[in-house]
Amino acid sequence: METGLPVSVPSTALFTDQYELTMLQAALRAGTAERRSVFEVFTRRLPEGRRYGVVAGTGRVLDAVENFRFDDQLLAFLRDTRVVDEPTLEWLAGYRFRGDILGYPEGEVYFPGSPLLRVEGTFAECVLLETVILSILNHDSAVAAAASRMAVAAGGRPLIEMGARRTHELGAVAAARAAYVGGFDTTSDLAAGFRYGIPTVGTSAHAFTLLHDTERDAFQAQVDSLGRGTTLLVDTYDVAEAVRTAVEVAGPELGAVRIDSGDLLLVAHRVRQQLDELGATDTRIVVTSDLDEYAIASLAAAPVDAYGVGTQLVTGSGHPTASMVYKLVARADSDAPDAPLRPVAKRSLGGKTSIGGAKWAARPLDAEGVAEAEIVGSGPVPGELADHLLQVKLVEGGTVVGREPLQAARERHRAAVARLPMSAMQLSRGEPVLPVEHR
Amino acid sequence: METGLPVSVPSTALFTDQYELTMLQAALRAGTAERRSVFEVFTRRLPEGRRYGVVAGTGRVLDAVENFRFDDQLLAFLRDTRVVDEPTLEWLAGYRFRGDILGYPEGEVYFPGSPLLRVEGTFAECVLLETVILSILNHDSAVAAAASRMAVAAGGRPLIEMGARRTHELGAVAAARAAYVGGFDTTSDLAAGFRYGIPTVGTSAHAFTLLHDTERDAFQAQVDSLGRGTTLLVDTYDVAEAVRTAVEVAGPELGAVRIDSGDLLLVAHRVRQQLDELGATDTRIVVTSDLDEYAIASLAAAPVDAYGVGTQLVTGSGHPTASMVYKLVARADSDAPDAPLRPVAKRSLGGKTSIGGAKWAARPLDAEGVAEAEIVGSGPVPGELADHLLQVKLVEGGTVVGREPLQAARERHRAAVARLPMSAMQLSRGEPVLPVEHR
Repeated sequence: METGLPVSVPSTALFTDQYELTMLQAALRAGTAERRSVFEVFTRRLPEGRRYGVVAGTGRVLDAVENFRFDDQLLAFLRDTRVVDEPTLEWLAGYRFRGDILGYPEGEVYFPGSPLLRVEGTFAECVLLETVILSILNHDSAVAAAASRMAVAAGGRPLIEMGARRTHELGAVAAARAAYVGGFDTTSDLAAGFRYGIPTVGTSAHAFTLLHDTERDAFQAQVDSLGRGTTLLVDTYDVAEAVRTAVEVAGPELGAVRIDSGDLLLVAHRVRQQLDELGATDTRIVVTSDLDEYAIASLAAAPVDAYGVGTQLVTGSGHPTASMVYKLVARADSDAPDAPLRPVAKRSLGGKTSIGGAKWAARPLDAEGVAEAEIVGSGPVPGELADHLLQVKLVEGGTVVGREPLQAARERHRAAVARLPMSAMQLSRGEPVLPVEHR
Repeated sequence: METGLPVSVPSTALFTDQYELTMLQAALRAGTAERRSVFEVFTRRLPEGRRYGVVAGTGRVLDAVENFRFDDQLLAFLRDTRVVDEPTLEWLAGYRFRGDILGYPEGEVYFPGSPLLRVEGTFAECVLLETVILSILNHDSAVAAAASRMAVAAGGRPLIEMGARRTHELGAVAAARAAYVGGFDTTSDLAAGFRYGIPTVGTSAHAFTLLHDTERDAFQAQVDSLGRGTTLLVDTYDVAEAVRTAVEVAGPELGAVRIDSGDLLLVAHRVRQQLDELGATDTRIVVTSDLDEYAIASLAAAPVDAYGVGTQLVTGSGHPTASMVYKLVARADSDAPDAPLRPVAKRSLGGKTSIGGAKWAARPLDAEGVAEAEIVGSGPVPGELADHLLQVKLVEGGTVVGREPLQAARERHRAAVARLPMSAMQLSRGEPVLPVEHR
C-alpha cells in the first residue's frame, strides 16, 4: 500500500459544480470561452453581529489550483456520464490554469465587499475554479473567524483545537489549519500535524480510566507511560478524589489536570485550591467542555491555564460557512488578447447585485497606527493609499508565487487584529468594525 | 500523474486524535490493552426541536475501518514527533481491526440514547477508531437529518444538492452522499457523481450571461450547446424580459428556467403565468435562492417544479454536527479471551453520564404499522421484540459484511420515516417523535 499524503488528493478537478463544465462547453462552441475575464471573491455581509472576517485557506487554494488537472480516469467519467461533449473533453485534457490570482494574504481580516481574491485569465480557465476556491475559502475562513474570537476571549492563554470528531474527517484537518491561523496553539488531530506541522497534543479520555479497575490504576498506568508531566483527566468519578489520587500518583510535578464536565468556573477554583494545598502549585488546569468564545471569556477570572475547544470551533461558532461568492466583474468584448475589459454585474432586483470592475483595496492607518477604513475602488489607486494596499500576488501566469509558511499567516492575523479599533475585541454583536468606502 | 480516486485517501489512520494513541501506549505498558471492550456510539439529545435523527455515513465508516493502516511514512511521522514510543509503533505497524461492529443500518432514523453503533474487540483495536468514526457519523448524519426535513417539506418535488461551494471540498462530497440518503435526488458536485454514482446536474450561472454581449446571445449559446431541454437562468437582468427571450430562443420545448433571487413565491407565480401564456406549459421552474426546509415548505402552493439547496443543507440547517459520542460501555477485568464483560460508565456530576453495558434496540409497530417506541435494553431481548431489532452486523472478525448500495440506504430512510407517527413530518419544534424506553 502506498500511503502518500493521507490528507491530500491527487486532483482537485472534480470538486466542481457541473455547471462550470457546461458553461465551458457552451462558451467554447459560442466562441466566447477565450474572452479575457476577471472574477472576484467577496462577501456581501459578515455573519450577523460579527466585527470582522478572517481570510483563511489561501495556501490550500494555491495547492488546489496547481492540482486542478483532468486525467484519463476523470475524463472517462465525464464522457460516460455525458456531462460534456468531446471538444470540451479535449480542452479539459490540456487544462492548467495559466492566469493570474491576487488577493488578501492569508490571516488578513476583511469586511463586506472586500475584494478578497481576484482571478484573471480567459473565461474558460477562470470559471472552472469557482467551486473549489469557494469551498476552501468559505470553510476555512468560517473556522478562522471563530478561532480569532476565541483567541481574543482567551487573552493569551493557550488554545487547543480538538474538534476533529465533530466534523468531516478531512474538513477537520483544514479546520485545525484555519484554527492555527486564527490563533490556536495546538491540535489533537494527527493528520493536521502530519500535513501542516501544527503541534499535536493529547493524553487520555474517560475510556482509559474506565478500562482500569480503579482510577488509581489508570493514573498510575498513564504516568508510568507518559511521565509525570502528563495531563490526567479528573472527572470520571469524583473530581476531588481524583485530584488527590492524581497528585499522590504523580507527585507535585504533575503536568496538568483536565476537567471535561460540570460548572467549570466553580470546579476550576476548587481544583486550583486543592492542587495548591497538595503542593502541586505548578500543575496546570485544562478545561474542555463544550466551550465557545463566550464560555472562554466567562472563565477569564478562573484559574484556568488552557482551553480545549471542539464543536463550536470547527462549526464556526454558529456560522459554519463564510458566504463568499465568486463573481465575474469584468470581461473583454472579444477574444483578442488586447481587447479592453469592461465591468459587468448582475443587476436584477433581489439583493444579489454586485459592483462591476476589478477592484483594489487599501486600509490606511491613523496616527496611532489604528486602521481607519477599508477603502475599495476600481479606478487608479490614489497616491496616499499606495502604501496601504491589501492585495498581494498569489499566482502569475499560472505559477504560484504567493506560497508562505503557515506561521506567516498566523502572525499576520495577530498583527492585523492588533491594528483594528478596540471594539473589534468585543464579543457582543455589533457592526463591522471598519466602514467600507467605495471610491 | 496518477489520479486514482480523487475523493478517497489511501489511509484513514491519522484522522485520529492524539490521545487515542497515547492511551494505547499506556495501556500496552500496563497490560490492559488487550482487555475485551465494547464501545457504543449514541447521542444524548437531538438538536433542539428536531423530531428524529438520521443515521448516515455508515458505508463511509466501513471504508474508513478497512483503510485504517499505518504505513512507514505515517509511523515515521509518529516517531519523529515522539507521539508514541517504539513498542507502540511496532504494534501500530501490524494494526488492522479484527473485531466486530454492529449498528443501525444507514438511512435508519434514531433518537436520544439509540445505540447507533457497537464496536467490540480489544480496547486497543477499538479505541483507535473513535475519532474517525465520530467524524464521519457526526458530519454525515447532520446533513442527512437536514435533507430529510427538506424532503418532507418538498412533498415529492425533486431536490438538487448544490452546496459544494459552502463547505470543505471533501466534506461536500460526503454531504452530497448524505443528502442523497436523506431524500435528495441529484447533486451539482461532480466528485459525488464520480465517487458515489449520484446523478449530477447543472447548466449555467450568472457569469455565463454576463460573459456575453446580450442575454439573448447567452441563451442562444447555451441552447445551441446544451439543447432546448436545458435550464436557462432568468434573473440576471429583468426576469420578465429574460423569460420572453428564453422562450423565443428555445421555443416552448425549453426544459426549465431557474430563479435564483427575489421573492420566489411571487416571481414563481408570475413566471408560470408568463410561460403558460407563451405556450411553454411544460417548461419547469427551478428555484435556488438560500432555501431551507421552511422556505421550501412556504413554496408548497407555488408553481415550483424543483428546489436547489446549498448552504442550509450542507451545514445541517443550523445543526452542522450530530453530537454523537463513542463511549466505553463494557470491558473485561483481564485480557483472558473468556473473561466476562462488565458494564462501565462515567458517573461524575455534570450531565455527561451514560448507561453502561452493550445494548440492543427495537422499534415495535402498532396494528397500523406505525412505530410505537424505541426500546433500548442491555439484558436478553424479550421474545416479542425479536422481530423488531434495529441493529445489523456490519463487520465480523475484521471483515466488512454490511456493505450495500447507497440506494438501499436511501430507500430504507424513506421507509423508516413513513413508519414514524405523523408528527415526525412537522417542521415546527417539538419533542423526539418516539419515546425511548430503557429495559
